[in-house]
Amino acid sequence: MFLPRISSRLPKPRRFIHGTRRNLTNAIHSESSDAPLARKRVILSGIQPTGTPHLGNYLGALSNWVQLQRDSSPNDTLLYTIVGWHALTLPQDPKKLSQSRREMLATLLAIGLDPNRSIIFHQDHNPHHTEFAWILSCLTPFGKLKRMTTWKSRLADSRNANNESEVNESLLNAGLFTYPVLQAADILVYRATHVPVGEDQTQHLELSRDIAQIFNQTYKRLFTLPKQLSTPSKRILSLKNPAAKMSKSAPDVQSRILLTDSHNQIKAKIRSAVTDSITGVTYDPETRPGTSNLLTILGACTNREGSDVAADYRSKGHGELKADVAEAIEGLLRGPRSEFERLREERGYLDDVAKDGAEKARALSEITMLDVRRRIGLS
Amino acid sequence: MFLPRISSRLPKPRRFIHGTRRNLTNAIHSESSDAPLARKRVILSGIQPTGTPHLGNYLGALSNWVQLQRDSSPNDTLLYTIVGWHALTLPQDPKKLSQSRREMLATLLAIGLDPNRSIIFHQDHNPHHTEFAWILSCLTPFGKLKRMTTWKSRLADSRNANNESEVNESLLNAGLFTYPVLQAADILVYRATHVPVGEDQTQHLELSRDIAQIFNQTYKRLFTLPKQLSTPSKRILSLKNPAAKMSKSAPDVQSRILLTDSHNQIKAKIRSAVTDSITGVTYDPETRPGTSNLLTILGACTNREGSDVAADYRSKGHGELKADVAEAIEGLLRGPRSEFERLREERGYLDDVAKDGAEKARALSEITMLDVRRRIGLS
Repeated sequence: MFLPRISSRLPKPRRFIHGTRRNLTNAIHSESSDAPLARKRVILSGIQPTGTPHLGNYLGALSNWVQLQRDSSPNDTLLYTIVGWHALTLPQDPKKLSQSRREMLATLLAIGLDPNRSIIFHQDHNPHHTEFAWILSCLTPFGKLKRMTTWKSRLADSRNANNESEVNESLLNAGLFTYPVLQAADILVYRATHVPVGEDQTQHLELSRDIAQIFNQTYKRLFTLPKQLSTPSKRILSLKNPAAKMSKSAPDVQSRILLTDSHNQIKAKIRSAVTDSITGVTYDPETRPGTSNLLTILGACTNREGSDVAADYRSKGHGELKADVAEAIEGLLRGPRSEFERLREERGYLDDVAKDGAEKARALSEITMLDVRRRIGLS
Repeated sequence: MFLPRISSRLPKPRRFIHGTRRNLTNAIHSESSDAPLARKRVILSGIQPTGTPHLGNYLGALSNWVQLQRDSSPNDTLLYTIVGWHALTLPQDPKKLSQSRREMLATLLAIGLDPNRSIIFHQDHNPHHTEFAWILSCLTPFGKLKRMTTWKSRLADSRNANNESEVNESLLNAGLFTYPVLQAADILVYRATHVPVGEDQTQHLELSRDIAQIFNQTYKRLFTLPKQLSTPSKRILSLKNPAAKMSKSAPDVQSRILLTDSHNQIKAKIRSAVTDSITGVTYDPETRPGTSNLLTILGACTNREGSDVAADYRSKGHGELKADVAEAIEGLLRGPRSEFERLREERGYLDDVAKDGAEKARALSEITMLDVRRRIGLS
C-alpha cells in the first residue's frame, strides 16, 4: 500500500549511522496545536510487514522515503508506518508476520530512515487508525467500495494469478473489501497533505479524498484533501519473467533480489536473469524487457537513466552487463544489509524506536480524533 | 442491538439509591487471569445512545438488565455497554447524540444498574472494540455479511418504511454493512459467554458464533461460543399503531411513553391510545391488539401476565383499564424518572462512572487482545 514506484535520484551508497541507541528527540516539530498543521506538508506512507523487501521495493519506494527525508523542509512532518492491520487482509503465517514486522522496522532504519527526523511506527500501535476507520466507514457508501478493483488485484497478486479474472471471489473477506477505508483513516487521521503513491494506488487516494470530502460536508470542513506526491516512477521487473513486476510472492525466489541477499546470492541471481538471445546490449523495454530491466537497475544504482547506461555497453555483451549490475547492486545494498544484520539483533532498541514512534504518531492523531469526536457527537 | 425483548418477572417499583458519589470498587471479581474466564458466566448486552428510552425498551430490555444484576451469581461478570460506534451507522445529529449518550448512562443508573456490580461503559471509550473488529473482519467472509438482512431492517426502521423492500440501498454505508462484525467484537473481546438478545438479533449472535469458530479454527481455540440468554419475551406495541412495535423513531410521539414522561404526559398518552370499538376488555392479541397491549403493559408493571390481568376487567371498560395502566406506569417510572432528573445534572459523577467503567472493561478486553495479538502475529 501507498508504495511509490519511483526515485531516479537515488541516494549514493553510504555508511549508515543509526547503530547507537540515541536519545529519540521529538520529531513532531511544534505539531502540538492543530492550526499550523494545515499549512505545512504532512507526508505519510506505509509498507506492509510481509516478507523481506526486495530490490523492487527499495528502488521503487523505500529509497524514495529516504530521499524525502533528505529533501523535505524541516517544517514538514514525515510519517512512515508499517501497516500490520493491512497485512491481515490476506492469510498470514503468524510467526512469519511477527518476525517480518520487526525486520521491516530494522530495514527502514538500515536504509537510512532516521527516527529523530521521521515518525516511524507500527500502525497497530496507534488505536486511532481503527477507531477513525470505523467512523469513516459509516460515511463511505457501500457502492463506492464495491466499485474498487484493488481487492481483486491484491488477491490475484497474493495467489500469483495471471489476471484478476482467475481470482476466486469466495476468498474475499470483509477486511479486504473495506481496507481502502482503513487506508483513508491512516492518511486522514494525521491530516496528511501529501501521500507518495504508485500509479496502481491512485484509485485509493482518490477514495481517501472522496471520504475526506464527505466528512467535510457532513461535519464542517476539517480535512485538507491529500495530494498525490509524484516522483519519477521506476518499475523493476522480475528477473525470471520480465513481463511482470518484481514481486514478494512470486514462487521463484530467483526472480527477486532481497535486501538481505549476500554478494554471492546477488551475483548468482543476476547471472541467471532472463534476458534475450539478441547480440549486444540496447535499451528497448518493449522488445528487450529483460535486458532493459538490467539497464534500469544499473541506472537506478548509479543515479542514471537506463537508456543512458546502455551507451556504455554498445560494444559489450550480456555477461559484462550482468557482472556490472551485480556489483552495482552489491554497492547499493552492502551498507543497508550489514546495518540490517546488526539492528535485527537489537531487539531492545527496535522496541524503543517503535514505542517512541507510536507515541509521536498518537500525539498527532489525537489532535484529529478529539476534533472528530466533538464534531460527530462522541466526545 | 442485543436488545432482549423480555422480562415477565419485573422488579417491583422501588427507591433508587445511586445518588451519592460512591467509591467505585472493582466489579471485575478476580478476572485478572484468563483461565477462570471460561468457567464463569460473562454476560454482555448493549444499547444504542439514540434518544430517550421508552417503555418498550424498559420492559423489553433494560429492566431485564437490572433483573440479571439481581439474579446473577457473584461470580458472573456483567457488562452493559452504550454502543456509540453503532449509532454512527445511521445519520445522527451530533448535538443530540452527545446528549443522548450522557443521558443513556444516567438512565442506566436511574433504573437501578449498579456500577459497583456491573461494568457500565461507553463502547467508544475502549479502543479494543474497533481493533478487534478489524481483526475479525479479516476473517469474515464477504458473502456471509451480504446474506445478513438486518441492515435492511435497520434502514427500514430508521426511515419508518413499512417493510424492507421500501428501503433504498444507496443509503447503505460500509459501517452499516459491517456492523455485525463490530458486534461480534463487542461480545468476543470480553469472551462473553451469554448474550441476552431478542428474536430479531438471533442472526447476529449466530454470526458472532460463526466468527468465533473461524478464529478458533484459524488460530487455535480461544473463544467459547457465546450463548443466547433466553428470557421470556415481552413485546410492547405502539400506542397509535398496535400493528408495530413501540419505536423511538415513529413520527407520532404519542405512540410511545418515554422514561422521562411526566405523570400527566403518561395519562394523556394512554388516554389517547388506540384500542378498538368492542365493548368490554378481553386479552386477544390477534383481534384486539391495542387492548391486549394495554393489558400486557399493566401486567408487566405488576408482575403478571396480560391474560391474567384481563380477568380483573371482565365487567369494566377501556376507560377504567386506561386509568389503571397510566397509574401502573407512573408507579413503575416515578422512581427512575426522578433519579434520572437528578443524575443528568451530575456531570462529574457521570463522567467518573463512565471512566471507571471503561477502565474495568478495558482491563478485561486487554487479556483477550494480548492473547489474540500473540496468535495472529501482531504482538
